[in-house]
Amino acid sequence: MAAPVDKVDLQARKRAAKIIHEKFKGVLKDVLSGKPPRLIIPKRTLANTRFDPEKGILVMGEDVIERELLNMGEARRFMQTLLMASIIYQALIENEYPTIRDLYYRGKHTIVYRDLRGRKRQENTWEEQKESDAAIRDVEVYTGLLREEMLILSKEKGKVVGRMKIRSGGDVIDLSRMGHGAYAIESTPDLIEILDVDAEFVLVVEKDAVFQQLHRVKFWDKYRAILITGAGQPDRATRRFVHRLHYEHNLPVYVLTDSDPYGWYIYSVYKVGSITLSYESERLATPPARFLGVSMTDVFGYGRKKRPWLSERERKNFIIKAKDKDIRRARELLRYPWFQVPEWKREIAIFLRKKAKLEIEAMASKGLRFLAFEYIPRKIETGDWIV
Amino acid sequence: MAAPVDKVDLQARKRAAKIIHEKFKGVLKDVLSGKPPRLIIPKRTLANTRFDPEKGILVMGEDVIERELLNMGEARRFMQTLLMASIIYQALIENEYPTIRDLYYRGKHTIVYRDLRGRKRQENTWEEQKESDAAIRDVEVYTGLLREEMLILSKEKGKVVGRMKIRSGGDVIDLSRMGHGAYAIESTPDLIEILDVDAEFVLVVEKDAVFQQLHRVKFWDKYRAILITGAGQPDRATRRFVHRLHYEHNLPVYVLTDSDPYGWYIYSVYKVGSITLSYESERLATPPARFLGVSMTDVFGYGRKKRPWLSERERKNFIIKAKDKDIRRARELLRYPWFQVPEWKREIAIFLRKKAKLEIEAMASKGLRFLAFEYIPRKIETGDWIV
Repeated sequence: MAAPVDKVDLQARKRAAKIIHEKFKGVLKDVLSGKPPRLIIPKRTLANTRFDPEKGILVMGEDVIERELLNMGEARRFMQTLLMASIIYQALIENEYPTIRDLYYRGKHTIVYRDLRGRKRQENTWEEQKESDAAIRDVEVYTGLLREEMLILSKEKGKVVGRMKIRSGGDVIDLSRMGHGAYAIESTPDLIEILDVDAEFVLVVEKDAVFQQLHRVKFWDKYRAILITGAGQPDRATRRFVHRLHYEHNLPVYVLTDSDPYGWYIYSVYKVGSITLSYESERLATPPARFLGVSMTDVFGYGRKKRPWLSERERKNFIIKAKDKDIRRARELLRYPWFQVPEWKREIAIFLRKKAKLEIEAMASKGLRFLAFEYIPRKIETGDWIV
Repeated sequence: MAAPVDKVDLQARKRAAKIIHEKFKGVLKDVLSGKPPRLIIPKRTLANTRFDPEKGILVMGEDVIERELLNMGEARRFMQTLLMASIIYQALIENEYPTIRDLYYRGKHTIVYRDLRGRKRQENTWEEQKESDAAIRDVEVYTGLLREEMLILSKEKGKVVGRMKIRSGGDVIDLSRMGHGAYAIESTPDLIEILDVDAEFVLVVEKDAVFQQLHRVKFWDKYRAILITGAGQPDRATRRFVHRLHYEHNLPVYVLTDSDPYGWYIYSVYKVGSITLSYESERLATPPARFLGVSMTDVFGYGRKKRPWLSERERKNFIIKAKDKDIRRARELLRYPWFQVPEWKREIAIFLRKKAKLEIEAMASKGLRFLAFEYIPRKIETGDWIV
């Protein structure tokens, strides 16, 4: 009945279990010494999220919340955090690989108790996954362990191919020998050992279908690259993998998205992190990531300084009218500190003036070879990107 | 500038280009001989979709539509189909790999013309991708070529690991050496050469996170299996890949979904196909696919004949109340011909009586080993599935 146990996984388990144990011992000590038990946890709120201009990422501020068992307003959250920590600890020592959804189920039950007047009452540990997910995040910030380090799995959609090898779960995998398919990145990217990088840069593509196109013409082989897609809004594992490639292997990272506020936001998540996960930016974000395109100046040109990549006629056929939602989002982006550079202000200004957007696929429809062997390499060569 | 050309791809290209050429030559002949050009295309409508009980799949009926250029009501669709065919043909002979989105862009332009009274008029070839996608389907049914056979790519999310090797794009890939990650199935699964199958069955899992869990404990290795996920509603490539494993390698296919009408529908798509793609069922569907669970009788038992897998207390914690939408969908499923077997009628009846559903994750929360090494294998061993 025993499952094979992977050595790398086992080490990660032991480490995480030990840290959880240490961190929560304090609570037990409080109880034993008669003190009201409490947890001091950094606040995961928008108000306590700020942009650190030096690091170039979103970080948590200094505000903390004190969760006390004997405080009516905090008792429920206190119990939830402790419950979640104990379930995760249990899963770690029992060689389990829970998903965030089954952590919800593992902890879901009804507590029946009698109140001060002796009346029978009941309460559920949590009602929705939103609550159990928040408890997971509390455990993450309290212990400093990412959920990936606690061997918690979740749905992943990132893919990679390119000139490198990795070791994962005891296997050595050559990412340059994936055929027309790709390697689907695992939930625990820190357990991947990066073995052999024979590449000069990383190209992150927003869209899966465009990733497949570039893969078919072996873009990554010709230009010595690692090709990655997060298939839209990237998950944590994809961001962490990109981060590792940049910081551990010194590879510049280029991001290719649609030319619209949604694409810019996706770039921004790779670059500085996201608000809900600001406590993880340090490990997930890649501030030096370069926005390769498609830029508004690629589409419309820029005065006499830059000729557009599209003809008048192509623009007419390819451009999509921006929606109100796009305009609102663009105005929001304009306020983000990391977009306070002339190039980004220009991008957003052109968008707001033209009220037009463009998809990468429009570039591919000029010919896949145009996209793969002209547009992308020439932009990289000439340094035509935005940081 | 030339991209490396893959031999297998090249053969596929030549074949598809030839068929398109042959098929549309007739239209040209009509024009040259002064006849009004027309296309006779099977109707892709709900009314012309029926269940073939012998084959066990959804098929197109006998109704055809005649698209004539000189018929005002049909001229636009006629032109669109011809335009799409010519774009696809062009892409084939130019070694392109268009996506369905860039086919839309490739054909999108405005035709300016003068009407009978000499007034200048203009019309767009198509306004939305819905129209160009319909034109792709018309080309598919008219030529008998699937879009995959015409080297058209699209977003794919299917993953596979297990005891087999494949050849794709010149590479031999060992799907039992994917580490904790997985092999992401390509858009053109017919170009995959299945080399070496050392498995006894295929297990298709609805959810990506559950796939990852089973993969971590090497379920596929212990039980000699191929493990696949379509990550929700499966795309065409995943369904085709499952189909090929069953028919070319004689492997029984088990499908594991949530215990709810949405999960049953996903099973049904693997099994009989879908209405919009009924012209492809023959190549995409796997009628002998077995529904392994989670079944309503697994949850609630069945009189004295079957004990449930969950205790009273677990049911209380794990069960989710069905929504009105679920109830409506269940009533619809009750009318599908392929659910007209006692076991399925019982499943749906229990659901409608209990108005309750259950996710696979609830089973995993009893312990991943319970799911992987007890529930699934015992159900397979004892033949506790539904066809």
